[in-house]
Amino acid sequence: MTDPIALAKALIACPSVTPATGAVFDVLAAALVAQGFAVERFVTGEAPDGPVENLLATRGDGGEHFAFAGHLDVVPPGEGWNGDAFAPEVKGGLLYGRGAVDMKSSIAAFVAAADGVTDKRITLIVTGDEEGPAIYGTAAIIERMQARGLIPDLCLVGEPTSTARLGDTIKIGRRGSVNMWIHVAGTQGHVAYPHLADNPIPRLIRILSQIEAVELDRGTDWFQPSNIEITTVDVGNPTTNVIPADASTRLSIRFNDRQSGPALVEHIGAIVASEPGATLDARISGEAFLTPPGAFSARIANAIVAETGITPELSTTGGTSDARFMSKLCPTVEFGLCNATMHKVDEAVALADIDTLVRIYRRILTADA
Amino acid sequence: MTDPIALAKALIACPSVTPATGAVFDVLAAALVAQGFAVERFVTGEAPDGPVENLLATRGDGGEHFAFAGHLDVVPPGEGWNGDAFAPEVKGGLLYGRGAVDMKSSIAAFVAAADGVTDKRITLIVTGDEEGPAIYGTAAIIERMQARGLIPDLCLVGEPTSTARLGDTIKIGRRGSVNMWIHVAGTQGHVAYPHLADNPIPRLIRILSQIEAVELDRGTDWFQPSNIEITTVDVGNPTTNVIPADASTRLSIRFNDRQSGPALVEHIGAIVASEPGATLDARISGEAFLTPPGAFSARIANAIVAETGITPELSTTGGTSDARFMSKLCPTVEFGLCNATMHKVDEAVALADIDTLVRIYRRILTADA
Repeated sequence: MTDPIALAKALIACPSVTPATGAVFDVLAAALVAQGFAVERFVTGEAPDGPVENLLATRGDGGEHFAFAGHLDVVPPGEGWNGDAFAPEVKGGLLYGRGAVDMKSSIAAFVAAADGVTDKRITLIVTGDEEGPAIYGTAAIIERMQARGLIPDLCLVGEPTSTARLGDTIKIGRRGSVNMWIHVAGTQGHVAYPHLADNPIPRLIRILSQIEAVELDRGTDWFQPSNIEITTVDVGNPTTNVIPADASTRLSIRFNDRQSGPALVEHIGAIVASEPGATLDARISGEAFLTPPGAFSARIANAIVAETGITPELSTTGGTSDARFMSKLCPTVEFGLCNATMHKVDEAVALADIDTLVRIYRRILTADA
Repeated sequence: MTDPIALAKALIACPSVTPATGAVFDVLAAALVAQGFAVERFVTGEAPDGPVENLLATRGDGGEHFAFAGHLDVVPPGEGWNGDAFAPEVKGGLLYGRGAVDMKSSIAAFVAAADGVTDKRITLIVTGDEEGPAIYGTAAIIERMQARGLIPDLCLVGEPTSTARLGDTIKIGRRGSVNMWIHVAGTQGHVAYPHLADNPIPRLIRILSQIEAVELDRGTDWFQPSNIEITTVDVGNPTTNVIPADASTRLSIRFNDRQSGPALVEHIGAIVASEPGATLDARISGEAFLTPPGAFSARIANAIVAETGITPELSTTGGTSDARFMSKLCPTVEFGLCNATMHKVDEAVALADIDTLVRIYRRILTADA
């Protein structure tokens, strides 16, 4: 049977800062092939956002089609580790290394949980770009799956959703995210002769005042209210007696499933259009998704209760994840390790948690559909 | 009799970028001593705003006490001159050189105009720091004059006030100027968790909206309305998913004689104080001044009409000048050469204008008080 801790160590030992390709996928592919998975790997994209490696593995052709999804890329280790971030080390019952919780150990737990489960179709969807722009990552795998009609019944994303204790939180949805850039053009001049200049700042202030007055919604049963943050305002004029020619700002909107990216761009765009010389650029990072509480979340919660005694909270908080792509295919829920050390120095996972996670994943996988 | 063109050339030949000391003052002092002026020179201040040389010269002790005021420092020549900016050259009736109009030729005209006028007290007030921070410049001379009770009846500042033709504009006042810096402190955080952060930008927007709504005044018979310009807004947050910890802005207020620097600081300060975490710093560059149209401006206008046939416009536009300091002592008006080339490459004055300016200055000086 696949040893999840040994596999987690082997994955951590392969440096795989976003965008990831190569060795780390070799290790995972070997473990899957040994279990009889058909493994397909493909590399797409160009620098600086690529090349990105993606892996699609599937086994079985009858019964429920269950998908596990995740990523093998990691954020940069940063400075200050007690050891080598890419040399996995066990101390005091903890496995240290970049990716220990986010989320190489979860990937290893997928493989171990699948071992010997032959009465259903199991698919693993693993990308090398979840932490980056994600342009060539999971979205590209989904396209390929849709093109071939390879549509799972359910998908579990192994992001580290637990907070204080393994099992305390699962994510049934995520807010969407859109960044917007507003630029207001004016005409430079001397402050002593304002009639010869056209200061863009008052127009930017009026735009931002209107945006501050917007209430998008008051939240839903499952989501907090959609939120607009003004994350910067920049003119950069060093000279006290000069009226500047340009002013700009940037917004970050995290929104629930009552909003959509394009509708928000239109809403803010109408405010921006009310001032001359003002333009808007927007980039939608992801739409909101919700897998309403039901059979799938209950199946996961039951497995968690059985293995840990904890009843998980159903949450939609936090940033975006690749679940936003998976949810286009089928009901998608996220559940994984404790996230206290993710993206930090000395990222570490309890060995006991890896074993428990394997048992939970297996119990979810083998529960009656 | 003092040759104003020869003296202007000799002054231009002494490089004297702000802060100025030394040779250029030697040249002026020699010309004044030759006419019987008592000349006092003093150097104050330290780098980078100093040392600055100042010159106070006086002659006569009866009758009206008439002061001429100006500066021997110049702005840097910059690149692109046809000749050497500090090698005065006459071509086509024009004298080229940095300071030709602003304002070494005016200083030379003061000296030539004073030559032989013995029925009144004449004082020259000349600084080496008008173009710079002016901390150790005219303000220091004024202090010294006040300390000794050396108070003129009238003061003519020789700034280049003419625009299209010599004599078309005199300045009977200037707006005041104050710069203000507003800083709003917040708490940094992740945009996905705004409740854990405290974004300073909305507070800054509210402050700036209130400031934009302020109407200080609607102008006066002699001044345009006081004006508030927001000259920059800066957060400088490069990261799309981070709520910033700080936001700041800067204002430049040019104000007429219905306002005062301290009252404006109090007015804006009250708006700033309405938002928590917001602080204000201010620097008053100068108060507004007005020498209401009357005997002195009429005396100048009459002299201009007599020599040129032009009736000058009485103006209060433009930036600040050292007249803001002189006006604390006595009625002060500014009149000088055409300013089209001031602060530009190939600064130049018409030789004929220097001669005309000497005649106008002499006519002003010798008119009945």
